[in-house]
Amino acid sequence: MTAIPGEFTPPTRLLLGPGPSEVHPRVLRAMAAPLLGHLDPAFIAMMEDVKALLRFVFATENPLTFPVSGTGSAGMETCIVNLVEPGDEVVVGVNGVFGTRMADVIERAGGTAVRVEAPWGRVVRAEQIEAALRNCRRPKLVALVHAETSTGAWQPLPDAAKLAHAHGALFLTDCVTSLGGAPVEIDGWEVDVAYSGTQKCLSCPPGLSPVTFGPRAQDVLRTRKSKVQSWYLDVTLLSQYWGEARVYHHTAPISMNYALREALRLVAEEGLEARFTRHRRNHEALAAGLAALGLGLASEEGHRLPMLNAVMVPDGVDEARVRGRLLTEHGIEIGGGLGPMKGKVWRIGLMGESSRRAHVLAALAALEDALRAEGRRVAPGAGLSAAQAVYSA
Amino acid sequence: MTAIPGEFTPPTRLLLGPGPSEVHPRVLRAMAAPLLGHLDPAFIAMMEDVKALLRFVFATENPLTFPVSGTGSAGMETCIVNLVEPGDEVVVGVNGVFGTRMADVIERAGGTAVRVEAPWGRVVRAEQIEAALRNCRRPKLVALVHAETSTGAWQPLPDAAKLAHAHGALFLTDCVTSLGGAPVEIDGWEVDVAYSGTQKCLSCPPGLSPVTFGPRAQDVLRTRKSKVQSWYLDVTLLSQYWGEARVYHHTAPISMNYALREALRLVAEEGLEARFTRHRRNHEALAAGLAALGLGLASEEGHRLPMLNAVMVPDGVDEARVRGRLLTEHGIEIGGGLGPMKGKVWRIGLMGESSRRAHVLAALAALEDALRAEGRRVAPGAGLSAAQAVYSA
Repeated sequence: MTAIPGEFTPPTRLLLGPGPSEVHPRVLRAMAAPLLGHLDPAFIAMMEDVKALLRFVFATENPLTFPVSGTGSAGMETCIVNLVEPGDEVVVGVNGVFGTRMADVIERAGGTAVRVEAPWGRVVRAEQIEAALRNCRRPKLVALVHAETSTGAWQPLPDAAKLAHAHGALFLTDCVTSLGGAPVEIDGWEVDVAYSGTQKCLSCPPGLSPVTFGPRAQDVLRTRKSKVQSWYLDVTLLSQYWGEARVYHHTAPISMNYALREALRLVAEEGLEARFTRHRRNHEALAAGLAALGLGLASEEGHRLPMLNAVMVPDGVDEARVRGRLLTEHGIEIGGGLGPMKGKVWRIGLMGESSRRAHVLAALAALEDALRAEGRRVAPGAGLSAAQAVYSA
Repeated sequence: MTAIPGEFTPPTRLLLGPGPSEVHPRVLRAMAAPLLGHLDPAFIAMMEDVKALLRFVFATENPLTFPVSGTGSAGMETCIVNLVEPGDEVVVGVNGVFGTRMADVIERAGGTAVRVEAPWGRVVRAEQIEAALRNCRRPKLVALVHAETSTGAWQPLPDAAKLAHAHGALFLTDCVTSLGGAPVEIDGWEVDVAYSGTQKCLSCPPGLSPVTFGPRAQDVLRTRKSKVQSWYLDVTLLSQYWGEARVYHHTAPISMNYALREALRLVAEEGLEARFTRHRRNHEALAAGLAALGLGLASEEGHRLPMLNAVMVPDGVDEARVRGRLLTEHGIEIGGGLGPMKGKVWRIGLMGESSRRAHVLAALAALEDALRAEGRRVAPGAGLSAAQAVYSA
């Protein structure tokens, strides 16, 4: 090779986008540990810790709870392709990018996606789900995104789970962005199957997707008529490695599992309730500060996620230019909008380690600065004062 | 959570199994760098370096060369599900675990796997491939495993590639274990599509699978009749993120890409020829040492991989007990056999950073010790002397 690139040193960033979130130094250090083989007894013991810690954050007793060796979308595909067989009807909530993606994956698996739509930013109503279920011949699954990362909408789940079961269907949820930042009660809400990601409120680098399959979902796995279309994501094969048999399937991403274990330990040390409170409080402070800057949220009142804030871009303000200023002048990453929200919202993530008072204040200060550069009149310190008031209350 | 597990510190191991291999401290350190967003301009520049370095190790000009966000088996599935549509005939060499797996994945994609078999440890003959192609109606693909990690067989590829093209088929190869340790000439051998892994001769932790698609393979992607069954592994979607459009697909495993870049830099600094010579020489020394200990290789003479040695377990020796001794008494991991070779071979990997003179000698010393504990008569230092002789020659 003629010109070998030099060492890569990432520039300093504060990650306040839709993920990856900030990663604790303990997690970074865990990843730098020397490797073990994927069948080493010491690694296998570590896998058991990861499973136990995941059951804790998922609030479940499901033995079949483990990280899939891919990012959140691999977890989505895992859940769907293992449960959906050609011809199966799946009622799926579509009110953002990730519901849309689920419908696509369902159809690629040969299923029929019965879309229940809501405007982006709003949540899907239980009545809509019930109506869709009534129109199905024999619904196999109801699938909803708990935390729609593209819009900031916070979908209620328990009623939908009850409806699914009343119609003989399983209930699946995407909790990629909510897990570790807001309550996710797999057993309490009777969720049959769920997937998440590591790079959101768990504050672990991206690369794994925690999944959990309950007893009803396992029954469906056992009684499939066809082979799962994906070998890599075949949960029955994967469970022989993550379960007691320890049969080699693929080489597990060793370092990523080290990282996940350490990130989950940090979650457990903080405690779930304290973590949820922290996420809520920082969201409230941010929202108050944004309002004082004249910025509103795109998601439905009463259904706003604490960890993902879709902020409406005011008329006359260049969405991408503000984001660019934040990145280059303040070292702060925030996200842009996706799909129909492209150019219309900023997405500010306060996930896991990124959900800190100092980061909220830094984001508001930087936004104020950037808005002023865009020619907006903003009272000096307005955003900061409003946020401080929330913290002082 | 009642009992939070303590910090995990992996025990000290020398990884001489079928992968993961030893990882250079520079690569471990690279993984511990703070994260960037997956659309950060600095990360995008880093992605370009990764692609350029991968083109270098694959010896290709293919623009569509990038790491899939999963381990080697995800790369296998990526190549197959993107190229194979329901009803397509694929001629696949089956002489070990990975050829068997390819056939399974082909069938899960709706393809017809035309198996060309050879006994485990032997390679598939070009005449067999030609005969299989003649029996096909319209073969879509010929798929061979370059380095069969389960047996140590080193499959010749160029003639098979020519045959595939003569019959209008694409040529696919699995170079998970060979890439970076033995010549892989994607363009020179006219390979249309290939996948690899990071945790073998590239000496990067597992978690990514480098793939490359040539112009003929890209034509096939463009003219597909059906959607790719996997959303996560859909190369057309992935190429919009890894190509110039930079459209968000999934959140790339940031830290793993840092690691891969640094591992590839180490490969480039050493140079491919020097690296291949190192792998060959350490293999020769190991094989000489093993022979002096009365141990033979299971793979076919003349087709033995330098980086993976399947060692026949002598009668009366307990395969698992010896492996256990190596692990617990010497801190050395070697692999056991898979499938029909379970209990019959040890697999000693000398891959990337694991292919070092010191490690060869350590492995021989430990094996001698363990064989003696099993009641075998071994002349003291016989293995070491034989290996030293190779190094001194």
